[in-house]
Amino acid sequence: MTGKVYLVGAGPGDSKLITLRAVELLKKADVVLYDRLVSKKILSMIPKNAKKIYVGRAVGDDYSHQENTNDLMIKYAKTKKNIVRLKGGDPIIFGRGGEEAEHLKKHKIKFEIIPGITSGIGSATYSGIPLTHRKFASSVVFVTGHEDLQRSKEKVKWKKLANSVDTIVIMMGLSRIDIICKQLIQGGMGKRIPVAVIQEGTTSKHKMITGTVSNISKLVTQKKIKPPSIIIIGKVVNLSKTIGWK
Amino acid sequence: MTGKVYLVGAGPGDSKLITLRAVELLKKADVVLYDRLVSKKILSMIPKNAKKIYVGRAVGDDYSHQENTNDLMIKYAKTKKNIVRLKGGDPIIFGRGGEEAEHLKKHKIKFEIIPGITSGIGSATYSGIPLTHRKFASSVVFVTGHEDLQRSKEKVKWKKLANSVDTIVIMMGLSRIDIICKQLIQGGMGKRIPVAVIQEGTTSKHKMITGTVSNISKLVTQKKIKPPSIIIIGKVVNLSKTIGWK
Repeated sequence: MTGKVYLVGAGPGDSKLITLRAVELLKKADVVLYDRLVSKKILSMIPKNAKKIYVGRAVGDDYSHQENTNDLMIKYAKTKKNIVRLKGGDPIIFGRGGEEAEHLKKHKIKFEIIPGITSGIGSATYSGIPLTHRKFASSVVFVTGHEDLQRSKEKVKWKKLANSVDTIVIMMGLSRIDIICKQLIQGGMGKRIPVAVIQEGTTSKHKMITGTVSNISKLVTQKKIKPPSIIIIGKVVNLSKTIGWK
Repeated sequence: MTGKVYLVGAGPGDSKLITLRAVELLKKADVVLYDRLVSKKILSMIPKNAKKIYVGRAVGDDYSHQENTNDLMIKYAKTKKNIVRLKGGDPIIFGRGGEEAEHLKKHKIKFEIIPGITSGIGSATYSGIPLTHRKFASSVVFVTGHEDLQRSKEKVKWKKLANSVDTIVIMMGLSRIDIICKQLIQGGMGKRIPVAVIQEGTTSKHKMITGTVSNISKLVTQKKIKPPSIIIIGKVVNLSKTIGWK
């Protein structure tokens, strides 16, 4: 028997932001391989007789960890019918859904990909920051602050981003916020452009701090902001004062 | 009595891509103000005794149309308890959710904003195009092809975008695809960079064509692609050949 693997986005944290399709798939799952950022409430939707396996980061580096997940998907696809690979946020916005799908294809395993609310959009929404706005933002970029270690040089062109898009959403960038902001300023970004850092967005621990591109790095240290956090840069950040609703 | 207005994303088309929170709010709605791009299946989730009002584009220009929606939200918030403003896709990714929230705030009406799967991500996922990928894309920009008519000059910096981000997702840009692609090439984008245009993504009418930044405009005309369509530009488009799953 060969089963099917569903690469499913669980959404950003608030368990009610999962999709109907994701719940439907969880309820008929035989095996669920889940990440660190999936909430307990969502895990409780999985039937008791299904196998739940944690595949979040724990041991090994980025690569051995990903290989382990890949191996488990293939292993269970050979013996079980419905395998759900459950990811925090969205599978194709820095969720490695594309890479996992390629691996499944290579091993001739059928799959589907189910989008989830990405944490960048969820965190912004629950903070009252509209990532686009007719007056202030015609474009929004989602970018990783955590570069692939196997790449020889940094691929994100921070200096060019500084004056080509209106809103910048940085995921997995907290530890590098200082160097990123410096590069944006070097690229021509105004020093007073507002920045928000949102920790554990949409969860009960949702916490936001705001500053500017020149002082946010210090504030992150002072306020002891920890990962997982989303960084949002652009004029739209100011709107949270008016339309923050949480 | 003053009610609360919920600005809710309905997702990209496939009715199962709506969130649990959106369904919960629809089920207790007294009034639902809905857009053109919300599917019939989702509208059927609204209780029979609730008032359903279509506020999609029909009469007037962009501005009178938006004013009408704003007026209706205020009107019903004064007499009903739960008002849902239901939008296709996501409220803050070119959904005017921020502007509507500002209007509600100005009139002292309580509100919440509930994210939905944006059509850019949904359409890409169902086409097997991972918008980010460890090898090919560390950044993805969402940008409107439809500029605000009250802006004196074009705000999207197409030429600069050409070499500052890896993947470009253009929403509402079909009628301007020719001029946009020309500007991207002028900005230094390689003429063979692949492009996908996805019409009615994630719905039963989901249709994709692919080409390059130099020939896609002609193909759109030849293949009679119509709005609503999403344009995706970048190396990741090639992955749809391998991991397209629909």
